[in-house]
Amino acid sequence: MKRLVLLRHGQSQWNLENRFTGWHDVDLTDQGRAEAKQAGALLRDAGILPEAVFTSVLKRAIRTAWIALDELDRLWIPMTKDWHLNERHYGALQGLNKAETAAKYGDEQVHIWRRSFATPPPALEGNDERHPCHDPRYQNLDTEILPGTESLKDTLARVLPYWDTTLAPQLKHYDTLLIAAHGNSLRALVMHLEGLSDDEIMGVEIATGDPLVFELDDQLNVLKRYSLRAES
Amino acid sequence: MKRLVLLRHGQSQWNLENRFTGWHDVDLTDQGRAEAKQAGALLRDAGILPEAVFTSVLKRAIRTAWIALDELDRLWIPMTKDWHLNERHYGALQGLNKAETAAKYGDEQVHIWRRSFATPPPALEGNDERHPCHDPRYQNLDTEILPGTESLKDTLARVLPYWDTTLAPQLKHYDTLLIAAHGNSLRALVMHLEGLSDDEIMGVEIATGDPLVFELDDQLNVLKRYSLRAES
Repeated sequence: MKRLVLLRHGQSQWNLENRFTGWHDVDLTDQGRAEAKQAGALLRDAGILPEAVFTSVLKRAIRTAWIALDELDRLWIPMTKDWHLNERHYGALQGLNKAETAAKYGDEQVHIWRRSFATPPPALEGNDERHPCHDPRYQNLDTEILPGTESLKDTLARVLPYWDTTLAPQLKHYDTLLIAAHGNSLRALVMHLEGLSDDEIMGVEIATGDPLVFELDDQLNVLKRYSLRAES
Repeated sequence: MKRLVLLRHGQSQWNLENRFTGWHDVDLTDQGRAEAKQAGALLRDAGILPEAVFTSVLKRAIRTAWIALDELDRLWIPMTKDWHLNERHYGALQGLNKAETAAKYGDEQVHIWRRSFATPPPALEGNDERHPCHDPRYQNLDTEILPGTESLKDTLARVLPYWDTTLAPQLKHYDTLLIAAHGNSLRALVMHLEGLSDDEIMGVEIATGDPLVFELDDQLNVLKRYSLRAES
């Protein structure tokens, strides 16, 4: 049996301030750190010991993984950071709070961007300093593949190939794999594992700091799914 | 120009207690954490921004890297943990303090083990629970290659091939590489880079928490070497 653990990062500073974050690299709050620590403790107490961890290149996810590994006393396991696991890119809305966004674009439009499957927010232009092509962590990537905005559909379209090419093959080597990432990149994995439709995935919310465990057979079919906080 | 930065971890709990540590996985003290933070600040202030980091599988080196990356605001760079960069294995002396060792084996013998190039301390047997073959972090390795003790010569003999096969090729991809490791594994790299003899390497001491910067040409010949703490 294989185990895949999905862990959504805890509260970030911009979660607290109710601002659209996306690819902006904001850190965890003290509460977010406490959530990560608790997630590590839940894994440890359940005897679920990851053999490797994958995360995004955003510090709120990396720090969540670091804190959880510390609690597990497993600093030594391999850790891979990859932009494919980043949060959905929120385009020109990044940095605005919900009130500012509503004042600028109107409530109805904001509702569409937040709830629509395929409609992305306005894009950051390439000459905008906030565009990822100006960030050193993406400098070795073809700028053509770097998004200036994303719909949920776009996010799925980059996460799912990463599952096929990278994450699923890891489950040949490891029995227990941890993915520390973001609401929307983890949604993509849940959608794939559970065979959900576009409509169904819109309704899935993954709780922060609560390890979501999938037990899989060798063909990576889901045998069982449970959240550790609910179990504890 | 390429830059290779060697960073020896700061004070660990067993450094403080004056006990032989080797591969035992002891953590940093508060002072050790402060040294790591200062090392990160020295790198940041010198504008030396690592693009990737390599470290051992021991938490005092991994945590040193984490803390330095945090200070550099570069959590996102790739980090590789490999046992080839571990400290010299100190065999059956691991866990003993210097006074206990002298009482058990005699001052003269202890002096030989500490100062001889090629004489290893008594080995841990394979059925000793402290032998690395019982540690999950080494479980995918052939037990034949896992040491129960090492002389400095043995340590060099595993670090140098790792330089050739793994670290040196990384300097084709990256201009600035950070190695966060241990006194003896870093000595091996200094010996190789500077072409030192067995006798000469015995006299080299690398300061803890003080980034040692090598500027290299494209053929990895040393152009310049300096320590950041001395420069600051």
